[in-house]
Amino acid sequence: MEEIEKILNFMVEVEKLKDVHRKTRPVGLKRYENSAEHSWHVALSALLLKDFANEPVNICRVIKMLLIHDLGEIDAGDTIIYASETNKIKEDEEAGIKRIFSMLPSHMKNEFIELWQEFENGDTPDSKFAKAIDRVPPLLHNLHGEGHSWVANNISKEKVFSVNKRIENGSEDLWSVVCGKLEEAVENGILG
Amino acid sequence: MEEIEKILNFMVEVEKLKDVHRKTRPVGLKRYENSAEHSWHVALSALLLKDFANEPVNICRVIKMLLIHDLGEIDAGDTIIYASETNKIKEDEEAGIKRIFSMLPSHMKNEFIELWQEFENGDTPDSKFAKAIDRVPPLLHNLHGEGHSWVANNISKEKVFSVNKRIENGSEDLWSVVCGKLEEAVENGILG
Repeated sequence: MEEIEKILNFMVEVEKLKDVHRKTRPVGLKRYENSAEHSWHVALSALLLKDFANEPVNICRVIKMLLIHDLGEIDAGDTIIYASETNKIKEDEEAGIKRIFSMLPSHMKNEFIELWQEFENGDTPDSKFAKAIDRVPPLLHNLHGEGHSWVANNISKEKVFSVNKRIENGSEDLWSVVCGKLEEAVENGILG
Repeated sequence: MEEIEKILNFMVEVEKLKDVHRKTRPVGLKRYENSAEHSWHVALSALLLKDFANEPVNICRVIKMLLIHDLGEIDAGDTIIYASETNKIKEDEEAGIKRIFSMLPSHMKNEFIELWQEFENGDTPDSKFAKAIDRVPPLLHNLHGEGHSWVANNISKEKVFSVNKRIENGSEDLWSVVCGKLEEAVENGILG
């Protein structure tokens, strides 16, 4: 029962992810997306796209990673993918992850910290695929939202292509389709 | 590639779940919760609480159920758990689920509709546990938010206990802890 108490307290603590704001707006909405609804969106998207991973993946592990991948932002805040990843941001997120998972029973804590670290490192088939999926929704938001976040953050088309090309590390097929959409966006003047 | 196109269109369509508003406010926030961030919260909560299910569950299936369980609300809207479940609501949600999953390649469509139906019926170990988890966050929102939704919707303590007792169908241990918290809320005058 003490374990359940700890987990319920954790469930209350992670409510804070619903108040961490990202840099894109969901399709059709004026407000910015929060990291909790984003986490749902990528977990579901991974499930749908699993057959297009370059290497066989354990989709259950991929989904678990994506459910927890942004929890470090509760303490560290969200960073746009086009920002340079400084050591400071990395350290803050890691400290945040350790703090939050320390609320759980100890056998769970270590398991989740390791899973988060695997996602961050991004060098296993599961984490390469999870990271690829994580990059797609902000592109859809921009493609269906007049490139609002690219414009607002002054992101060039070169940067959009070079940063998101990493999608192909997880799924070449997915990158091929997304790349086509980005090229269309350039032609249509949404991405410049 | 055509399959990926369909899935990306589906990913855009389900963005609408981020604009379906529920009847409780996340802990510490003034605004109402949306069904997308709720879906993330319950999927993560199920993962954390899986060892307390009454019967062995396939946690991967439980999480999949919870990721899709509210998609029917895109067309039908959210209904508070204390409302009578009319046939009309059920029919609208089912029609919504069928419409939305019809956007996916056909082999995926049937798999997801069946998974949603299993959740709705709630008579397998996986769906009983998923339904139990789904009931917990609104209780936490009220317990940590001065019973705001109970007050606003005129929900008696008898109703709160009787409706949520169904949590014990999925996890007796979880219900036992939650029940203790509800009793405390009655003592503190939050639930009347």
